Amino acid sequence: MKIVVDAFGGDHAPLEILRGCRMAIDEYDVDILLTGSEMVIRETAEKDGISLARMEIFDAPEVIATDESPKSIMREKKNCSMAAGLRLLAEGKGDAFISAGNSGALVFGANMIVHRIPGIKRIAFAPVMPKHDGFFMLCDGGANVECRSDMLLQFGIMGSAYLDKVMGVPNPRVGLANVGTEDHKGGTLQHEAFELLQKSGLNFVGNIEARDIPADAADVVVADGFTGNVILKLYEGVAIELFGMIKELFQKNLKTKLAAALVLKDMRGMKKRLDYNEYGGAPIIGAAKPVFKAHGSAKAKTFKNAIRLTKAYVEGHVIEEISEAIACFEKEHGGQVE
Amino acid sequence: MKIVVDAFGGDHAPLEILRGCRMAIDEYDVDILLTGSEMVIRETAEKDGISLARMEIFDAPEVIATDESPKSIMREKKNCSMAAGLRLLAEGKGDAFISAGNSGALVFGANMIVHRIPGIKRIAFAPVMPKHDGFFMLCDGGANVECRSDMLLQFGIMGSAYLDKVMGVPNPRVGLANVGTEDHKGGTLQHEAFELLQKSGLNFVGNIEARDIPADAADVVVADGFTGNVILKLYEGVAIELFGMIKELFQKNLKTKLAAALVLKDMRGMKKRLDYNEYGGAPIIGAAKPVFKAHGSAKAKTFKNAIRLTKAYVEGHVIEEISEAIACFEKEHGGQVE
Repeated sequence: MKIVVDAFGGDHAPLEILRGCRMAIDEYDVDILLTGSEMVIRETAEKDGISLARMEIFDAPEVIATDESPKSIMREKKNCSMAAGLRLLAEGKGDAFISAGNSGALVFGANMIVHRIPGIKRIAFAPVMPKHDGFFMLCDGGANVECRSDMLLQFGIMGSAYLDKVMGVPNPRVGLANVGTEDHKGGTLQHEAFELLQKSGLNFVGNIEARDIPADAADVVVADGFTGNVILKLYEGVAIELFGMIKELFQKNLKTKLAAALVLKDMRGMKKRLDYNEYGGAPIIGAAKPVFKAHGSAKAKTFKNAIRLTKAYVEGHVIEEISEAIACFEKEHGGQVE
Repeated sequence: MKIVVDAFGGDHAPLEILRGCRMAIDEYDVDILLTGSEMVIRETAEKDGISLARMEIFDAPEVIATDESPKSIMREKKNCSMAAGLRLLAEGKGDAFISAGNSGALVFGANMIVHRIPGIKRIAFAPVMPKHDGFFMLCDGGANVECRSDMLLQFGIMGSAYLDKVMGVPNPRVGLANVGTEDHKGGTLQHEAFELLQKSGLNFVGNIEARDIPADAADVVVADGFTGNVILKLYEGVAIELFGMIKELFQKNLKTKLAAALVLKDMRGMKKRLDYNEYGGAPIIGAAKPVFKAHGSAKAKTFKNAIRLTKAYVEGHVIEEISEAIACFEKEHGGQVE
């Protein structure tokens, strides 16, 4: 298997990306096709003593400014590392593409260059997030701020396939993010999506309240991209604030500092468990080939883990699974998804 | 000033409500008009030794089942404590109404019985919530799942007036809950609301991301009721989960138990600071007279505090303030709010 890797995406590129690739090749037996400035990649590898064995390089030296919009990146910087990677994937030069770069650009580029799975209305950004025990998938986490109900149905189908085939959650529970658990809750979008999800054949557990998401309301949380993005970001914001407050508390006086020393290791473990950077990243789901978003802050180990998931994304035949599920629903319910 | 109080709303009614009323009368020099079963009120007061001085009772003995819908409560149980209280307020028998009962019923009843401030499109449920330092108001927190942009503008105007006049936040910063901070973010609703808020004369700070709400993004967070409800409930859900994890961590072994003993008091303080039950409750804002929702779990002290805020709601002339602001906007922008 050959995975195309954006060597210049994320906060710690290219060094940590190269390190992560090295680790992944050695552990998971994959080949890597790097995109980005060949000169910088070679210099970085040499300086850090990273062997480039089993790594090819596609020279794509164009640099993106931090304030460029996703659209302009993809339209005007055709030889930046991300656009080049997506093109190589579309051309069949690799089995999947992974980038720690700008999510918006990745979604936009996947749409434009890799295209969608036939029958799929919208590509979604679907982060895997921590909950009390384990994780859940949020679909959509922000790619589509305005959605129709048939898109929400597809988010459920796609999230379900991914959790089953990649994350090892058989028959995942799909819940619709709503303002209450009763069937009639929400607005028109939720009412319609509820009906579609109910006859989808998915393991639909109904409406779920935001309050129950961090506990264990569902394995796949279906939401329009606006709501999903609010969930994603508030989740992070509240956790950051609370950890900040705990830190302040522990630094208050000698007594609290002693307490901090006693639980330091456990606290770090807990923080790590909640850090969504440690989790499964986010498939750019609905693209016709596997495209994966690693976290922007990913260091070598996290990036290695993201490559492992990308490999599973290919091997789990998630795309075929989604195609079949969509075709099956259309057949049974007469083009309701069309 | 006479405040009408639903003696049978909330988890600890009527005992804690009566205790809270007693404390409020003694501290804030208000008169109280209680609604609910006069017999039970008198029995409870006598048994607990609570003086009913300066408290009148309006006998409204009809009982609500827990599974009744807000609409059926208000339509069919005209002599339950909440409906009676709203009616007494509408008839001018008191200056404000406060209840710790069902929020949905209170919003619906306020609409039906007290009516809206002229020019106001929708009554909002506007909880005051904790952030890193102090608090913010969420408007709307869930009364209106589907909103138009002119309603969002009014939520900003109403929240602003309340924070200024009741909570002592002069010139409050109003932010629009969105999926990013850039001006063009969001869907049609956000684009339109952004424009209206920008020319509103409010201290509009633009779009805010959910990630920044717990820090200090704005004093008034404007959102449609669906988004607002997701924010309200996820906020609570994440905090509950994190505190649960910390509790588990502290119980892990002798070392962590020792640490727990050292920070127990500080932790409780922190938890209390974050407990939105300790905060300002939620005005049912937009109603033609002051209607206030105290937390369902309110005990005497919290309820007393809610009465203090209800008094400030009356004395701050918030309703007049809102009326003027709405009229002023209409005059300047030619019926944009109509």
